[in-house]
Amino acid sequence: MKMSDGVEQAIHSVAMLSGLSEGGVLSAAALAEFHGVSTSYLLKHLQALSGAGILDTVPGPRGGYKLAKAAEEISLLDILLAVEGPAPAFRCAEIRQRGPNPVSDRFFAKPCNISAAMLRAERVYRAELAKTSIADLGIELNALDDGSIAARGCAFLEIHERKTAR
Amino acid sequence: MKMSDGVEQAIHSVAMLSGLSEGGVLSAAALAEFHGVSTSYLLKHLQALSGAGILDTVPGPRGGYKLAKAAEEISLLDILLAVEGPAPAFRCAEIRQRGPNPVSDRFFAKPCNISAAMLRAERVYRAELAKTSIADLGIELNALDDGSIAARGCAFLEIHERKTAR
Repeated sequence: MKMSDGVEQAIHSVAMLSGLSEGGVLSAAALAEFHGVSTSYLLKHLQALSGAGILDTVPGPRGGYKLAKAAEEISLLDILLAVEGPAPAFRCAEIRQRGPNPVSDRFFAKPCNISAAMLRAERVYRAELAKTSIADLGIELNALDDGSIAARGCAFLEIHERKTAR
Repeated sequence: MKMSDGVEQAIHSVAMLSGLSEGGVLSAAALAEFHGVSTSYLLKHLQALSGAGILDTVPGPRGGYKLAKAAEEISLLDILLAVEGPAPAFRCAEIRQRGPNPVSDRFFAKPCNISAAMLRAERVYRAELAKTSIADLGIELNALDDGSIAARGCAFLEIHERKTAR
């Protein structure tokens, strides 16, 4: 079981975008440069984040990405589901219904208890991820920072942030 | 994020093996037939379960698989880790250290707080899976059963269970 590298890239990108000033956007190329990753690969994940209502896209040559809502309202779960899709990791192929001698159909009206137990654990996992917002991550990072982490981000935004009409 | 179909097959197989009588074993072919799955694919997962100390293998033409410990001592987490490996689903590629202007190395002594939050949720997930044993699943299933699910398993074991010297 492995999630795509895109999850890490997407979370870092959303965290970076939470530092933009009002009306500012960052291009996919700038986000990719800051994180040292492939622009084309990151673009796929930024589009998924836009599709999920986490990012807004400002079109045009001076366009880019910004948060579509407050950093407090974007959880790690929101980002995971945007990048990896909503399906649970455990997939039940209903093998209990196969084989040469299946039991009566009425036992299959309820989900298999193996599937139920696996999905119960995934609900707990998702609930845990839902507890942490992008704003929380920023607060944690600030607590560690002697100013140099913030300065690095600010210096990058100073050069790369694009101001839009809005 | 998707786990392999092998997880479902492995859990059902271990549950089936928990119904063997003392000294009995089942072949991979019998387990595959009962669940309507590919023997060669299932074999790979049975070998992983043996490697993890969940199953014992009895060699020889009358050999097969049986539990290596009590059903109460085998959790869903044990089976998941045997089939999928111990690595967490979230992989941190330390992209915070990349890019044109990384911050001081000393900030990288501690794990990135994004990675820490993702792994915290996985610990909660694993703890939840560790709560359910193969014995628990049997108790749940018995509570639903009017006798026909047990009868199906017993009829299959009657034909396919191999008695070993031990």
